[in-house]
Amino acid sequence: MSTLDDGTPRTAGDARPGGASGPGVPGAGAGFSRRRLLGTAGAAGAAGLVAGGAAGAGIAAAAEDRPAALASVGAAHIPFEGAHQAGIVEPAQARGHLVAFDLAPGAGRGAAAALLRRWSDAVREMTRPGRPGTPAVYDDQVADDAGPSSLTVTFGFGRTFFARTGLTARLPEALAPLPDFPADALDPRRSNGDLWVQIGADDALVAFHALRVVQRAAAGTAAVRWQMNGFNRTPGATARPRTARNLMGQIDGTNNPKPSEPDFARTVFVPAAGSAASAAASAAGGGGTGTSPAWMAGGSYAVVRRIRMLLDSWDHLPVARQEKVIGRRKSDGAPLSGGTGTTPVDLERIGADGALAIAGDAHIRVAAAASNSGAAMLRRAFSFHDGIGTDGTPDAGLLFIAWQADPMRGFVPVQRKLDGADGLSRFLRHEASGLFAVPGGAGPGEYVGQSLLEG
Amino acid sequence: MSTLDDGTPRTAGDARPGGASGPGVPGAGAGFSRRRLLGTAGAAGAAGLVAGGAAGAGIAAAAEDRPAALASVGAAHIPFEGAHQAGIVEPAQARGHLVAFDLAPGAGRGAAAALLRRWSDAVREMTRPGRPGTPAVYDDQVADDAGPSSLTVTFGFGRTFFARTGLTARLPEALAPLPDFPADALDPRRSNGDLWVQIGADDALVAFHALRVVQRAAAGTAAVRWQMNGFNRTPGATARPRTARNLMGQIDGTNNPKPSEPDFARTVFVPAAGSAASAAASAAGGGGTGTSPAWMAGGSYAVVRRIRMLLDSWDHLPVARQEKVIGRRKSDGAPLSGGTGTTPVDLERIGADGALAIAGDAHIRVAAAASNSGAAMLRRAFSFHDGIGTDGTPDAGLLFIAWQADPMRGFVPVQRKLDGADGLSRFLRHEASGLFAVPGGAGPGEYVGQSLLEG
Repeated sequence: MSTLDDGTPRTAGDARPGGASGPGVPGAGAGFSRRRLLGTAGAAGAAGLVAGGAAGAGIAAAAEDRPAALASVGAAHIPFEGAHQAGIVEPAQARGHLVAFDLAPGAGRGAAAALLRRWSDAVREMTRPGRPGTPAVYDDQVADDAGPSSLTVTFGFGRTFFARTGLTARLPEALAPLPDFPADALDPRRSNGDLWVQIGADDALVAFHALRVVQRAAAGTAAVRWQMNGFNRTPGATARPRTARNLMGQIDGTNNPKPSEPDFARTVFVPAAGSAASAAASAAGGGGTGTSPAWMAGGSYAVVRRIRMLLDSWDHLPVARQEKVIGRRKSDGAPLSGGTGTTPVDLERIGADGALAIAGDAHIRVAAAASNSGAAMLRRAFSFHDGIGTDGTPDAGLLFIAWQADPMRGFVPVQRKLDGADGLSRFLRHEASGLFAVPGGAGPGEYVGQSLLEG
Repeated sequence: MSTLDDGTPRTAGDARPGGASGPGVPGAGAGFSRRRLLGTAGAAGAAGLVAGGAAGAGIAAAAEDRPAALASVGAAHIPFEGAHQAGIVEPAQARGHLVAFDLAPGAGRGAAAALLRRWSDAVREMTRPGRPGTPAVYDDQVADDAGPSSLTVTFGFGRTFFARTGLTARLPEALAPLPDFPADALDPRRSNGDLWVQIGADDALVAFHALRVVQRAAAGTAAVRWQMNGFNRTPGATARPRTARNLMGQIDGTNNPKPSEPDFARTVFVPAAGSAASAAASAAGGGGTGTSPAWMAGGSYAVVRRIRMLLDSWDHLPVARQEKVIGRRKSDGAPLSGGTGTTPVDLERIGADGALAIAGDAHIRVAAAASNSGAAMLRRAFSFHDGIGTDGTPDAGLLFIAWQADPMRGFVPVQRKLDGADGLSRFLRHEASGLFAVPGGAGPGEYVGQSLLEG
């Protein structure tokens, strides 16, 4: 029944009714897809999205699980259409590209709308289940032979986009420039941009192909401002797909909000205007930027930071010292306050030596929501490694992407605390930065950003 | 039975007797390993090496097959020890690092021997089946949780190594500097080097970890001269693991020598001195560099080229024109002389228009062994993509690595033909180059290069 056959036996999950991501069910099955659930069922649906087609199994599993029911890396499929864009709550893929564009002189609202239409149509083709289609705009055939390989392509708008397209009346308050953090060492040529595209796939050629298609579709309308490459674990490389390590060797993302938690959707996504969640967000006040415009319903704000890790310095620290800087055990991510990798952090715990088990400047203390009036964000990062830097040390680190309904209640207050006070910050250098408004997902026949550009 | 369990059901092949690469058989099973077969059974054994533990199945399959019998990406294991070094005949992994070192001032033969010992011991640990060990020299824990993921680390010596270590008497004649090719645009800072290390793994963090271990082990003895990153398909992303595409979208490696062919071992590996193969190689003469020194028995010569692809120009060519430049159909790699991707090329075939089906300057004509007095090499490449170059076009292409028993009967005559005459060369730029003597593999307790450094 399948056009994809790599010799890997199908798993039991692949034959499940509702297991819509298998390669052989491009039609009706895909219609009742994982991402559709999200639009109708909210946060509980988000868990179902990434964990498996059978709703019961889906809700029980956490968002950072890879879709274990899928038979092969290539066949794994994340639908483009949905209430939210793909590439936010799904596990970060093995390969990622971030690219920012600036509109060409003279390209206004109409040209931008046509570009978002071309982009959306191309991504719809490239993310088809089974054998992906050919993007009308261009195809270099680099992805031929491969399945969709969990490809996601996510589109966002930078602050400068609105003036260039005569849409300043629709500029979200939340897109105010990020504050200057004293320890930042930002390269403006690799920061910001009118448009931002995040590409992820579990196959490097599928991701590269999507990047080239996105670039080609922009020709004449928008020029590349900056572009970065990243990576994560290959599915199946580890026994514990729930954990990811960064290039410092630390387990990362342990304390991320989980779709099973009641505040997940409110933390990550802009509520529909007039909804109860929207009213609650306004009432909460306290440093937030208030209600986002209606066109951002179902959307999110992405803070993008290229964070260089000073690995040669870090790697000279003894492991026990590294663990104190972070506040977690390196081997399994257990907090130094005790327990295992899944034990909640106890910031008050006093160790045998009479000192705080989690040091005063430990990264997880300073970054904790409890230390920041509940500020929280969904972190979804790629590691980067661009060889040897001009200073002779590894040009490597984290392409940090934080997703939140309001940056003023997510990244900004946390980074204000971290900048300088965090013991880890001595080993990091924020080299590039961007803030982008990522609208909700497109429905059938729609394109991403349509309600902004045509509303 | 397995310490690695990612929820993927084991395949039937994993339970086979002799399927020695499974995670649960680090002992006796691994002793009768795939790579060991190669040392005793020659070219036929090489097929068994990569295709499956059961000898019958192995010989039938081609070398470029991924080890399909392995249950998961992480558990796949390529032994470090063997008659040849690992990382030559095995399929190129999803992630690769190439790094060259220059010896520090004052570091001579003894320091180099100690470094190769540290390197070999570390790789032996990192490539252990099941749960890899901790390299004694250093461990940043970036690869924790992951299986060996088909990690290979391959060591080579550049021409300059021999003078710096007082070993000029053992310099292979075959390590003569490569000739100048008129179209080359080589950057000397990214070319050559005293020592060369090729790292490949199907998980990016496993590969990065190995790179950091290799660098750390060299501290004080050798400094990084240049370093490059590459990638290939993720196992399971495609339905056809036999084919790989480069960033031009072309199926690559179709015409590679295959371990099942009688000349394979003679093409790729230096024969043992005094062997029949050695005598035949000497007798063949004709442009070759004669017999390699005894310490190179079982070794190979690696030609490394960073080949930038001028993708923006290439991608503007219509597909039919691209196919004429290459001589193959883009979709499936079939030669324009007819047939399928596995049909031999017919260079004499006249098309319906009365012209040669494979054009006079088509890449596969100029590169064909038939056009080069039988010159052949095993190509095993990684794609690279380092973002946007200083000229605004993609800094992307191929980390081309050619393996042969004698560069004067492999890369050199072929590249002499290609340089300029090949229609494809207008879309390529050779930006860096290296030639390295890669000795045979280490046995138990040995280190790579021991017979050179202690012989």
